[in-house]
Amino acid sequence: MFAALAPYKAVHRYGLGDLLHEQARSRPDDIAVVDGKHRFTYAQLDERVNRLAAMLREHGLRKGDRILWLGQNSFRVLEVLLAAARTGGIVCPANWRASAAEVARTLEDFDPKVVFWQEAEVGEQNRKARGDWQHGRSWIQHDGEEHDEHCYESLLAKSPSLDEFEPLEPATPLLAIYTAAFTGAPAAALLNHESLLLTAMMGIQGQSITEKSGYLVSGPMFHVGVLMGTLATFLAGGRCAFVARVDPVELLQMIQDEHLTHAFIPQPTAQQMGVVNADGHYDVSSIFAKSDLSDWRSPLVMPPTAPLMTHPGGYGQTEIGGLSVLAWLGGVAAGRPSPFLQIKIGDDAGNELPRGAVGEIFARGPLVMCGYWNRPEENARRVVNGWHRTNDLGKRLPDGSLAFVGPKTTMIKSALENIYPVEIETCLREHEAVADVCVIGVPDPVWSQNVKAVIVRRPGRTDAEADFIEHCRQRLASYKKPKIVVFAESLPRNGAGQIDRAAVDAAYGGGGYPSVG
Amino acid sequence: MFAALAPYKAVHRYGLGDLLHEQARSRPDDIAVVDGKHRFTYAQLDERVNRLAAMLREHGLRKGDRILWLGQNSFRVLEVLLAAARTGGIVCPANWRASAAEVARTLEDFDPKVVFWQEAEVGEQNRKARGDWQHGRSWIQHDGEEHDEHCYESLLAKSPSLDEFEPLEPATPLLAIYTAAFTGAPAAALLNHESLLLTAMMGIQGQSITEKSGYLVSGPMFHVGVLMGTLATFLAGGRCAFVARVDPVELLQMIQDEHLTHAFIPQPTAQQMGVVNADGHYDVSSIFAKSDLSDWRSPLVMPPTAPLMTHPGGYGQTEIGGLSVLAWLGGVAAGRPSPFLQIKIGDDAGNELPRGAVGEIFARGPLVMCGYWNRPEENARRVVNGWHRTNDLGKRLPDGSLAFVGPKTTMIKSALENIYPVEIETCLREHEAVADVCVIGVPDPVWSQNVKAVIVRRPGRTDAEADFIEHCRQRLASYKKPKIVVFAESLPRNGAGQIDRAAVDAAYGGGGYPSVG
Repeated sequence: MFAALAPYKAVHRYGLGDLLHEQARSRPDDIAVVDGKHRFTYAQLDERVNRLAAMLREHGLRKGDRILWLGQNSFRVLEVLLAAARTGGIVCPANWRASAAEVARTLEDFDPKVVFWQEAEVGEQNRKARGDWQHGRSWIQHDGEEHDEHCYESLLAKSPSLDEFEPLEPATPLLAIYTAAFTGAPAAALLNHESLLLTAMMGIQGQSITEKSGYLVSGPMFHVGVLMGTLATFLAGGRCAFVARVDPVELLQMIQDEHLTHAFIPQPTAQQMGVVNADGHYDVSSIFAKSDLSDWRSPLVMPPTAPLMTHPGGYGQTEIGGLSVLAWLGGVAAGRPSPFLQIKIGDDAGNELPRGAVGEIFARGPLVMCGYWNRPEENARRVVNGWHRTNDLGKRLPDGSLAFVGPKTTMIKSALENIYPVEIETCLREHEAVADVCVIGVPDPVWSQNVKAVIVRRPGRTDAEADFIEHCRQRLASYKKPKIVVFAESLPRNGAGQIDRAAVDAAYGGGGYPSVG
Repeated sequence: MFAALAPYKAVHRYGLGDLLHEQARSRPDDIAVVDGKHRFTYAQLDERVNRLAAMLREHGLRKGDRILWLGQNSFRVLEVLLAAARTGGIVCPANWRASAAEVARTLEDFDPKVVFWQEAEVGEQNRKARGDWQHGRSWIQHDGEEHDEHCYESLLAKSPSLDEFEPLEPATPLLAIYTAAFTGAPAAALLNHESLLLTAMMGIQGQSITEKSGYLVSGPMFHVGVLMGTLATFLAGGRCAFVARVDPVELLQMIQDEHLTHAFIPQPTAQQMGVVNADGHYDVSSIFAKSDLSDWRSPLVMPPTAPLMTHPGGYGQTEIGGLSVLAWLGGVAAGRPSPFLQIKIGDDAGNELPRGAVGEIFARGPLVMCGYWNRPEENARRVVNGWHRTNDLGKRLPDGSLAFVGPKTTMIKSALENIYPVEIETCLREHEAVADVCVIGVPDPVWSQNVKAVIVRRPGRTDAEADFIEHCRQRLASYKKPKIVVFAESLPRNGAGQIDRAAVDAAYGGGGYPSVG
């Protein structure tokens, strides 16, 4: 019946590479990227990406082949991504702070056909990781001198400028981001063109990005939030300004020179910028309302009226395209899903639970990843009846908005009951003697697990174990109260300031969690 | 290589029916639709649509089957569209002002499995069109009394509420809109889920629609602009208020009662509303800055700060999802394409022309239609190397923005040169003696066509033919100047106030246009 519509099938193909062609037609002379001495318009970027795509083909890259970026931030990460978008390659910007051993594991797992690597600052670890892992792969140094014929710029200059590439299906994977998977070993989540484009569209709305915006890319490009800000600016036709790493003076200068309006700036850097600019030497009024940045808290910088600024936060994970349940879409909890994303709260078999019940967060729709690279068993486990299993727990509040309860890995099982540490911790934090607390499950032959609270008491407080148990008994269902309470001087925390639950488990006998099989 | 990703294929399926499920989860108690005495929340709408989808199945509707709406505006058009979105049907809201003969032709062409029809006001023409065209089809009256067991509401009440429907590919056709095709006979452009959802997302941005918005659906639902406003409001989680037809008092009352913020109101209706509300009896401040609407001009009503209000206009056609090149996306001409749409200016064979050249506007990307229903030859003709041929002429200005030149059907061919009437008309309008003008092509055995100008002179002016020809010769390339000038008292115009070029051709011997084969 639909044979009559067949000619139109080809018309709908569309990817990030097509978007670049359109930007080059629609705003040829607007500046697309700024990076050190480099400054390219959309037409120039399009032409460079055509050459780069031709060069990738010459290096044997075919649809589905991987490309690894071993370097710091650069406008060339965007170029490589766009060239891959034209040729069907998959790009992974690796963590440049990784050790040589970690990089070697990434090479092994991701098996890239082409590696773009950097000499400055990270040359030694890259060479070490590379070892003799080179056979049949192309290693291209992106920051070499232009007279070195094997470097990015000279290879690009020699390449023909093709502009005819077969359009891709929007479902083609394009970006790979390694995330800390729940089994402990990192796995690369693959995001396709459609997910990236749709997330960028939401970024435009949430961060009030327009063609007049300038985005300071100073967060790491292996972070999905930074990549999305970059792509949103690209989609809107604005300017992306790249810095290799976060030097406070360089950032202040860049904001002043380019009149930047948006940024991703890690918090410690913002505070260093505040110290450097205490005298207001740099005019950063295009982006910050005041020059004193020493108390700046959010890494996302945008106009104060932007929805994500007035209603920050939400829920997300790299696997569903980053932050994709958004507080600015309303509701009293973490927010509501962006269009093109469905969320359901389900039991372990994926059966939907009634409003208010705590269960696993499942997601579906074009925002969701295409799966993890090279993890067939995990992919099979993570798809339940057409829904992606997030491994996170949540519930719907009465108004329908989504509340994030905690990672499923920390769920405690006592007999048939599911117990969520965050709930018990919230209760214990209301006790005036509690300075800090972590609730874990310890194995029990009868009950599966028992609830154990590790409490840091406030200075001078000597409340006994039973006092805390009684506090919970009065406020929670009885099965949720801790059976065991121990005291600690402090709790281990990770770099982001969150309690390191694995370390608490290791130190206090936690284990037997039902989600860890 | 991608076998490992196979489980995730099913996760990306997503359509308008899934969006409704999500709205019912995310904002169950928010009002979705208002229509007369009816007032339903998103949870109620979801439940009704589940019943309706089950009822459509019971009436034999299968994937790809058509559903025709023969009635005025109603919230049930949205329900039917959403139920079709769950079952794979294709819905056409027909023009209720069409004659019985026209409706009969639509029945013949669209071949619907199910027809929803209306008794009030249009019952007679519907029955006449139906004749004995009924065999094997279901005719369901949507506005019947609830005690009539064959009517919409009673059939709905009897239907089971299924909530498990197989998710659809976003490329599945869903909506059919009859447009005046260039051959003269209307054809139904089919838009798919993805196009509708993406256009609705742009509507949210352009019209500043949020979950707090209320949209007055008083324009006809067979108009793509009205449907898009309705879907944008639905996507944002706002309220749609439906009126069957445009009664000034009813509209004023609805705006006041529901605190509506957005609308599509035909211009004559807005002026009638202004007369009725001259004394400010109705409080319409939620939508209009002042109660005097007698000089209101735009059918699209939205907050004064909305991008589409501050930068109105653009270029579009139903076949590319409506207005999808938008002035608010920047540039000095009609604007720039929305994301997910590529535009190129090409010659007749689809080869891209350099910036500045006039040529046919080609479009590609997921916004573009799936083709015309039941027009295999036209579909084959309209797709050129993966691009949709718009049959419109345009060019890129130096800043890359798109300028619409005119429909290709009015292009004049003189020897090998293409001549665009609008360009000559613009030149002639600069002559102070010209009150109105239409430039046409008349057949010529040697030159294919000659340029002929039909001019209405200003009162009292007696300038001769040669004066106007000389005026053009001084300002345009010589081959563009009219060879023939004739004078008229007035020019025929259509309902929208545009010159009726076909009538001018008929009256003054126009013909032989190269695009009309």
